[in-house]
Amino acid sequence: MSRFAPRPEPPYYAVIFTAQRADGDHGYDETAARMAELAAQQPGYLGVESTRDEAGLGITVSYWRTTDDLMAWRRQLEHSVARNNGRAQWYTHYELRVAKVERAYGWDRADGKRPGDGGA
Amino acid sequence: MSRFAPRPEPPYYAVIFTAQRADGDHGYDETAARMAELAAQQPGYLGVESTRDEAGLGITVSYWRTTDDLMAWRRQLEHSVARNNGRAQWYTHYELRVAKVERAYGWDRADGKRPGDGGA
Repeated sequence: MSRFAPRPEPPYYAVIFTAQRADGDHGYDETAARMAELAAQQPGYLGVESTRDEAGLGITVSYWRTTDDLMAWRRQLEHSVARNNGRAQWYTHYELRVAKVERAYGWDRADGKRPGDGGA
Repeated sequence: MSRFAPRPEPPYYAVIFTAQRADGDHGYDETAARMAELAAQQPGYLGVESTRDEAGLGITVSYWRTTDDLMAWRRQLEHSVARNNGRAQWYTHYELRVAKVERAYGWDRADGKRPGDGGA
Protein backbone atom coordinates (compact mmCIF):
# COMPACT_ATOMS: atom_id res chain seq x y z
CA MET A 1 0.00 0.00 0.00
CA SER A 2 1.32 3.44 -0.96
CA ARG A 3 2.32 5.77 1.83
CA PHE A 4 1.53 8.75 -0.39
CA ALA A 5 -1.86 10.41 -0.50
CA PRO A 6 -3.61 10.70 -3.86
CA ARG A 7 -3.26 13.88 -5.89
CA PRO A 8 -6.74 15.35 -6.33
CA GLU A 9 -7.31 18.60 -8.16
CA PRO A 10 -6.75 21.60 -5.81
CA PRO A 11 -8.16 23.33 -3.91
CA TYR A 12 -8.52 20.98 -0.96
CA TYR A 13 -7.41 21.11 2.68
CA ALA A 14 -4.42 19.81 4.61
CA VAL A 15 -4.20 19.32 8.37
CA ILE A 16 -0.52 19.40 9.29
CA PHE A 17 0.08 17.80 12.68
CA THR A 18 3.66 17.90 13.97
CA ALA A 19 4.16 16.23 17.32
CA GLN A 20 6.82 15.05 19.70
CA ARG A 21 5.90 11.71 21.27
CA ALA A 22 6.45 11.19 24.96
CA ASP A 23 8.11 8.01 26.21
CA GLY A 24 5.96 4.91 26.49
CA ASP A 25 3.00 3.71 24.46
CA HIS A 26 0.05 4.41 26.80
CA GLY A 27 -2.34 2.88 24.27
CA TYR A 28 -1.11 5.10 21.46
CA ASP A 29 -0.52 2.50 18.77
CA GLU A 30 -3.91 0.91 19.21
CA THR A 31 -5.75 4.23 19.26
CA ALA A 32 -3.77 5.67 16.34
CA ALA A 33 -4.60 2.65 14.20
CA ARG A 34 -8.27 2.91 15.07
CA MET A 35 -8.28 6.66 14.38
CA ALA A 36 -6.65 6.14 10.98
CA GLU A 37 -9.28 3.55 10.11
CA LEU A 38 -12.08 5.84 11.24
CA ALA A 39 -10.64 8.86 9.40
CA ALA A 40 -10.60 6.95 6.13
CA GLN A 41 -14.35 6.39 6.48
CA GLN A 42 -15.21 10.07 6.95
CA PRO A 43 -16.93 12.18 4.28
CA GLY A 44 -14.40 14.29 2.40
CA TYR A 45 -11.36 12.27 3.43
CA LEU A 46 -8.77 12.33 0.64
CA GLY A 47 -5.77 10.60 2.20
CA VAL A 48 -2.96 10.83 4.71
CA GLU A 49 0.83 10.89 4.83
CA SER A 50 2.60 10.15 8.09
CA THR A 51 6.10 9.48 9.35
CA ARG A 52 8.05 9.59 12.60
CA ASP A 53 11.75 9.41 13.34
CA GLU A 54 13.64 7.52 16.03
CA ALA A 55 13.63 10.58 18.28
CA GLY A 56 9.82 10.49 18.28
CA LEU A 57 9.17 13.55 16.13
CA GLY A 58 6.24 12.81 13.83
CA ILE A 59 4.50 14.67 11.05
CA THR A 60 1.07 13.55 9.88
CA VAL A 61 -0.69 15.39 7.08
CA SER A 62 -4.29 14.45 6.38
CA TYR A 63 -6.14 15.78 3.35
CA TRP A 64 -9.79 16.78 3.17
CA ARG A 65 -12.16 18.05 0.53
CA THR A 66 -13.58 20.95 2.55
CA THR A 67 -13.12 22.67 5.92
CA ASP A 68 -16.53 21.34 6.97
CA ASP A 69 -15.27 17.81 6.39
CA LEU A 70 -12.14 18.30 8.43
CA MET A 71 -13.95 20.12 11.21
CA ALA A 72 -16.44 17.26 11.50
CA TRP A 73 -13.57 14.81 11.78
CA ARG A 74 -11.77 17.01 14.27
CA ARG A 75 -14.82 17.06 16.52
CA GLN A 76 -14.99 13.28 16.39
CA LEU A 77 -11.24 12.96 16.94
CA GLU A 78 -11.28 15.24 19.93
CA HIS A 79 -14.05 13.24 21.53
CA SER A 80 -12.00 10.10 21.11
CA VAL A 81 -8.78 11.66 22.32
CA ALA A 82 -10.61 13.08 25.32
CA ARG A 83 -12.12 9.68 26.02
CA ASN A 84 -8.68 8.12 25.99
CA ASN A 85 -7.12 11.00 27.84
CA GLY A 86 -4.42 10.66 25.21
CA ARG A 87 -2.92 14.03 24.60
CA ALA A 88 -1.24 14.57 27.92
CA GLN A 89 0.22 11.06 27.92
CA TRP A 90 1.20 10.73 24.28
CA TYR A 91 2.82 14.05 23.43
CA THR A 92 5.11 16.57 25.00
CA HIS A 93 4.41 19.18 22.32
CA TYR A 94 2.47 19.54 19.11
CA GLU A 95 1.60 22.07 16.46
CA LEU A 96 -1.51 21.81 14.30
CA ARG A 97 -2.09 23.83 11.16
CA VAL A 98 -5.03 23.90 8.78
CA ALA A 99 -4.01 24.91 5.27
CA LYS A 100 -5.69 25.21 1.89
CA VAL A 101 -3.76 23.35 -0.81
CA GLU A 102 -3.50 25.59 -3.84
CA ARG A 103 -0.99 23.73 -5.99
CA ALA A 104 0.33 20.18 -6.04
CA TYR A 105 2.56 18.01 -8.11
CA GLY A 106 4.49 14.81 -7.80
CA TRP A 107 7.35 12.88 -9.29
CA ASP A 108 8.08 9.22 -9.62
CA ARG A 109 11.37 7.71 -10.69
CA ALA A 110 9.53 5.30 -12.96
CA ASP A 111 8.07 8.25 -14.88
CA GLY A 112 11.18 10.41 -14.75
CA LYS A 113 9.18 13.52 -15.44
CA ARG A 114 7.13 15.99 -13.46
CA PRO A 115 3.43 15.87 -14.27
CA GLY A 116 3.10 19.60 -13.62
CA ASP A 117 0.75 21.44 -11.32
CA GLY A 118 -2.55 19.87 -10.37
CA GLY A 119 -4.17 16.93 -12.06
CA ALA A 120 -4.46 13.36 -10.91
CA MET B 1 17.19 23.80 19.22
CA SER B 2 13.47 23.24 18.77
CA ARG B 3 12.36 21.03 15.91
CA PHE B 4 9.09 22.94 15.73
CA ALA B 5 8.58 25.97 13.53
CA PRO B 6 7.42 29.20 15.16
CA ARG B 7 3.73 30.04 15.21
CA PRO B 8 3.29 33.33 13.33
CA GLU B 9 -0.13 34.85 12.81
CA PRO B 10 -1.88 33.28 9.76
CA PRO B 11 -2.15 33.59 6.87
CA TYR B 12 1.21 32.31 5.68
CA TYR B 13 2.31 29.50 3.36
CA ALA B 14 3.39 25.91 3.83
CA VAL B 15 5.32 23.78 1.35
CA ILE B 16 4.60 20.15 2.19
CA PHE B 17 7.23 17.86 0.70
CA THR B 18 6.67 14.12 1.20
CA ALA B 19 9.39 11.95 -0.26
CA GLN B 20 10.64 8.39 -0.31
CA ARG B 21 14.43 8.26 -0.17
CA ALA B 22 16.29 5.90 -2.44
CA ASP B 23 19.07 3.71 -1.05
CA GLY B 24 22.46 5.30 -0.55
CA ASP B 25 23.49 8.84 0.30
CA HIS B 26 24.72 10.20 -3.06
CA GLY B 27 25.66 13.48 -1.39
CA TYR B 28 22.20 13.93 0.08
CA ASP B 29 23.13 14.73 3.67
CA GLU B 30 25.64 17.38 2.71
CA THR B 31 23.33 19.03 0.20
CA ALA B 32 20.31 18.85 2.51
CA ALA B 33 22.26 20.57 5.29
CA ARG B 34 23.43 23.28 2.92
CA MET B 35 19.92 23.79 1.55
CA ALA B 36 18.47 24.09 5.06
CA GLU B 37 21.08 26.70 5.92
CA LEU B 38 20.39 28.61 2.71
CA ALA B 39 16.61 28.44 3.16
CA ALA B 40 16.87 30.00 6.60
CA GLN B 41 18.56 33.02 5.02
CA GLN B 42 15.84 33.65 2.44
CA PRO B 43 13.39 36.55 2.65
CA GLY B 44 10.07 35.43 4.07
CA TYR B 45 11.37 32.21 5.60
CA LEU B 46 9.39 31.41 8.76
CA GLY B 47 10.67 27.98 9.76
CA VAL B 48 10.73 24.28 8.94
CA GLU B 49 9.65 20.96 10.42
CA SER B 50 11.16 17.76 9.11
CA THR B 51 11.25 14.08 10.00
CA ARG B 52 11.98 10.75 8.33
CA ASP B 53 11.41 7.19 9.44
CA GLU B 54 13.62 4.12 9.18
CA ALA B 55 11.96 3.10 5.93
CA GLY B 56 13.10 6.38 4.36
CA LEU B 57 9.76 8.14 4.14
CA GLY B 58 10.26 11.79 4.98
CA ILE B 59 7.97 14.77 5.39
CA THR B 60 9.42 18.27 5.37
CA VAL B 61 7.16 21.28 5.80
CA SER B 62 8.71 24.70 5.27
CA TYR B 63 6.82 27.88 6.11
CA TRP B 64 6.91 31.14 4.18
CA ARG B 65 5.39 34.57 4.51
CA THR B 66 4.15 34.87 0.91
CA THR B 67 3.96 32.84 -2.29
CA ASP B 68 6.52 35.18 -3.85
CA ASP B 69 8.96 34.26 -1.08
CA LEU B 70 8.51 30.54 -1.54
CA MET B 71 8.62 30.76 -5.33
CA ALA B 72 11.91 32.64 -5.14
CA TRP B 73 13.32 29.94 -2.90
CA ARG B 74 11.95 27.20 -5.12
CA ARG B 75 13.72 28.67 -8.14
CA GLN B 76 16.98 28.76 -6.21
CA LEU B 77 16.41 25.25 -4.85
CA GLU B 78 15.70 23.83 -8.28
CA HIS B 79 18.87 25.32 -9.66
CA SER B 80 20.83 23.69 -6.87
CA VAL B 81 19.09 20.36 -7.19
CA ALA B 82 19.61 20.43 -10.93
CA ARG B 83 23.27 21.27 -10.41
CA ASN B 84 23.65 18.30 -8.11
CA ASN B 85 21.46 16.11 -10.26
CA GLY B 86 19.96 15.11 -6.96
CA ARG B 87 16.37 14.25 -7.55
CA ALA B 88 16.84 11.14 -9.62
CA GLN B 89 19.43 9.73 -7.23
CA TRP B 90 17.89 10.74 -3.92
CA TYR B 91 14.24 9.89 -4.28
CA THR B 92 12.06 7.21 -5.77
CA HIS B 93 8.89 9.28 -5.40
CA TYR B 94 7.77 12.60 -3.99
CA GLU B 95 4.71 14.79 -3.65
CA LEU B 96 4.93 18.55 -3.22
CA ARG B 97 2.03 20.72 -2.14
CA VAL B 98 1.80 24.45 -1.63
CA ALA B 99 -0.85 25.42 0.90
CA LYS B 100 -2.05 28.58 2.59
CA VAL B 101 -2.13 28.23 6.37
CA GLU B 102 -5.42 29.62 7.61
CA ARG B 103 -5.45 28.51 11.25
CA ALA B 104 -2.79 27.27 13.63
CA TYR B 105 -2.44 26.32 17.24
CA GLY B 106 -0.09 24.38 19.45
CA TRP B 107 0.09 22.61 22.74
CA ASP B 108 2.90 22.01 25.18
CA ARG B 109 2.81 19.68 28.14
CA ALA B 110 4.44 22.33 30.29
CA ASP B 111 1.52 24.66 29.62
CA GLY B 112 -1.17 22.02 29.74
CA LYS B 113 -3.55 24.17 27.80
CA ARG B 114 -4.26 25.00 24.20
CA PRO B 115 -3.45 28.61 23.28
CA GLY B 116 -6.28 28.70 20.74
CA ASP B 117 -6.22 29.60 17.09
CA GLY B 118 -3.54 31.94 15.78
CA GLY B 119 -1.24 34.05 17.86
CA ALA B 120 2.46 33.73 18.58
